[in-house]
Amino acid sequence: MALASTANSALDFGPASALSCRECGTRYDLGPIFACIECFGPLEVAYDFGPVTREEIAAGPTNIWRYSKLLPVPGNVETRPNLQPGWTKLVKADNLAGELGLRSLYIKDDSGNPTHSFKDRVVAIALEAARNFGFHTLSCSSTGNLAGAVGAAAARAGLDSCVFIPSNLEEAKITMASVYGGRLVAIDGTYDEVNRFCSELIGDELGEKWGFVNVNLRPYYAEGSKTLAYEIAEQLGWRIPDQIVIPVASGSQLTKIDKGFRELIKLGLVEDKPYKIFGAQAEGCSPVSSAYKAGHDVVQPVKPDTIAKSLAIGNPADGPYVLDIARRTGGAVEDVNDREVVDAIRLLARTEGIFAETAGGVTVGVLRKLTESGALDPEAETVVLNTGDGLKTLDAVAAEARPAAVIRPSLAAFRTAFAN
Amino acid sequence: MALASTANSALDFGPASALSCRECGTRYDLGPIFACIECFGPLEVAYDFGPVTREEIAAGPTNIWRYSKLLPVPGNVETRPNLQPGWTKLVKADNLAGELGLRSLYIKDDSGNPTHSFKDRVVAIALEAARNFGFHTLSCSSTGNLAGAVGAAAARAGLDSCVFIPSNLEEAKITMASVYGGRLVAIDGTYDEVNRFCSELIGDELGEKWGFVNVNLRPYYAEGSKTLAYEIAEQLGWRIPDQIVIPVASGSQLTKIDKGFRELIKLGLVEDKPYKIFGAQAEGCSPVSSAYKAGHDVVQPVKPDTIAKSLAIGNPADGPYVLDIARRTGGAVEDVNDREVVDAIRLLARTEGIFAETAGGVTVGVLRKLTESGALDPEAETVVLNTGDGLKTLDAVAAEARPAAVIRPSLAAFRTAFAN
Ligand SMILES: Cc1ncc(COP(=O)(O)O)c(C=O)c1O
Ligand SMILES: Cc1ncc(COP(=O)(O)O)c(C=O)c1O
Ligand SMILES: [Zn+2]
Ligand SMILES: [Zn+2]
Repeated sequence: MALASTANSALDFGPASALSCRECGTRYDLGPIFACIECFGPLEVAYDFGPVTREEIAAGPTNIWRYSKLLPVPGNVETRPNLQPGWTKLVKADNLAGELGLRSLYIKDDSGNPTHSFKDRVVAIALEAARNFGFHTLSCSSTGNLAGAVGAAAARAGLDSCVFIPSNLEEAKITMASVYGGRLVAIDGTYDEVNRFCSELIGDELGEKWGFVNVNLRPYYAEGSKTLAYEIAEQLGWRIPDQIVIPVASGSQLTKIDKGFRELIKLGLVEDKPYKIFGAQAEGCSPVSSAYKAGHDVVQPVKPDTIAKSLAIGNPADGPYVLDIARRTGGAVEDVNDREVVDAIRLLARTEGIFAETAGGVTVGVLRKLTESGALDPEAETVVLNTGDGLKTLDAVAAEARPAAVIRPSLAAFRTAFAN
Repeated sequence: MALASTANSALDFGPASALSCRECGTRYDLGPIFACIECFGPLEVAYDFGPVTREEIAAGPTNIWRYSKLLPVPGNVETRPNLQPGWTKLVKADNLAGELGLRSLYIKDDSGNPTHSFKDRVVAIALEAARNFGFHTLSCSSTGNLAGAVGAAAARAGLDSCVFIPSNLEEAKITMASVYGGRLVAIDGTYDEVNRFCSELIGDELGEKWGFVNVNLRPYYAEGSKTLAYEIAEQLGWRIPDQIVIPVASGSQLTKIDKGFRELIKLGLVEDKPYKIFGAQAEGCSPVSSAYKAGHDVVQPVKPDTIAKSLAIGNPADGPYVLDIARRTGGAVEDVNDREVVDAIRLLARTEGIFAETAGGVTVGVLRKLTESGALDPEAETVVLNTGDGLKTLDAVAAEARPAAVIRPSLAAFRTAFAN
């Protein structure tokens, strides 16, 4: 006990006061733990927030650290070497809105993050936890984006890294996951098998001293997604949108965006108002939308088969919470097939000049589907997330995005190729 | 005459007052022209700057429009649909500085722009010129990055686009150049041939009504690179660095960064101080560094052969100005070979978590080479540009950035693979 409190007193997690079980509420000291001993429920960060004003936030840096008083990070986090993710663009998407018949649509474009996905947000918080706990190696199981984000963050922070991916990922994600000089291990298996393997590693002496950002550091990591909620609200002029479409892999991001909105209301930073949260999956990996449509509370694991590999988690840890939130807020969970994903990527590129990865194709595809079905209110203020970058999933569109012609450099050749 | 002034009075180029010849100083009304009738010299934008303060700029948007009073754009540019590029990170690179033996090093990381290269800056300015002149089609000749930037900007602005590239570009750049739905034309030839072809097109009825951002809109386009100088100075706390390393393809960017620094001094926004500008080329396309080393004032065209395809301009329009500036400021122009480019990409990724394209490998490689040779002062404040994104030139590192092992998901397999 004495030892434990000595160790803890050296920790600096800013406003975070404890971990608490999402299921039974049992509280734990802040530590590299992630499951409740009483009930095996997931742990999440609890806070003692001090006063926070809009003005203070607006005067902060143009990255996620403007919200450091709402995150489990030390007050001086801004001065430490990290990738300074966040404060990505909220793009008013009038062209896309026009094509879909929506009155007011925004794209939160997280392809602008340092490694071009929203994962830089969660990794930046996990990195601070790793520093707090004295881990010298940053690790993860990844569907692709997380691997790159961990590799880059570790390189900049001067930590070792060892990241695990399914061996069938896109070439761009494999190269990116290894270019930062850490160790990349490809696993013959699905993401769910990679993830189970990482849990074994933590239990073994091989991995027990590693900070797995989405396993033993998961409670901290997950908080990073709250910053999407904060930024969207602030960029709208301190207002929560009426409806928002969020991709679902493990379901962590969606869950924490809801948490972020509720915190803003509680802190008086935005007006209390209803909002609807919609989850988006790929048909080839849609355990949560299947459960939603069947009216189930539990999520049946599936074996993924979709081009949206970053969302290919067949056994989503936070699936039940996604169901809860979609139902509680009056939203829904929907899925689109691979053809609709590609069409949506091209639609977004053509209308707004934003090249999304397949995960963005999933959210825009679901946005379109739910608008057509009437589940989304065309009059309501709507936000859709693009959480990744088209350059990482080129194959999805490469066959269709080709030169109109290959010609010799002459006016005659041009005329011949494009004669009407 | 009457007609011309009526037309001109509808134009809104903000503080820009005229075009003036860089060679003979002849002034022209603002129009879609780019070469002096008297001497064939290139035209550049001249201004009547009003008062501008640091505070006003700091209160502006976090993109290049914070400097709209220093650019040839209307005052309300911020409210018009464009990609809002700029305000990319200036990263303090202590790890890289340590490895190279530099005291104070920053990376200006333009991979954070919307289409992940600095070209979004120049295209955003050219777009306003196209709107001013009533062009409905945006066009360009491109070594890759410009094509994507033009395609994206045109899509968002609701203009047509038709972009021309050499057919041997990287897959990622080809896909990106076409995904936004405009017309992509690949040319069997070098960039210089593509560029010459575009000049022919403008002279023909086929292309006479198109806005070629880097041909008939070049004077406006080029001004976009000044924002790199503005941002670097502002992000350093309104100070010009002692030395800066800039990539050179046509030489436009380097030339305009120098112009930007000089404007800041003239406007009293920074203190007047000496600074040294260093140009960086790839050995396989180094006409400017060859001329620099030979002490020549003219640049001999070459046929490019390098993995740094975005810099592969064998006949650089602004080459002589680059030579002038390097000599006047006490800088230099240097080149590195393809192996050094790849090593530099990996060095930057490993030390700072930034994945640069080959052009960034060229600048970091030259930074290293000039530091080792003593041409760069290790005690002086140094900035190096990364103007593009590693995801667009994966092949440069793909063979070397691989998984350390591919294993089955078991502790035994992990142990076997990584036993010492
Ligand atoms: C691009 C992208 N979007 C969304 C997600 C979904 O994240 P979560 O597991 O939090 O649901 C991921 C997860 O890997 C992702 O890579
Ligand atoms: C990534 C990148 N960096 C630098 C340059 C150099 O530009 P400039 O032609 O202005 O010298 C280019 C030109 O295409 C580029 O694509
Ligand atoms: Zn519990
Ligand atoms: Zn002239």
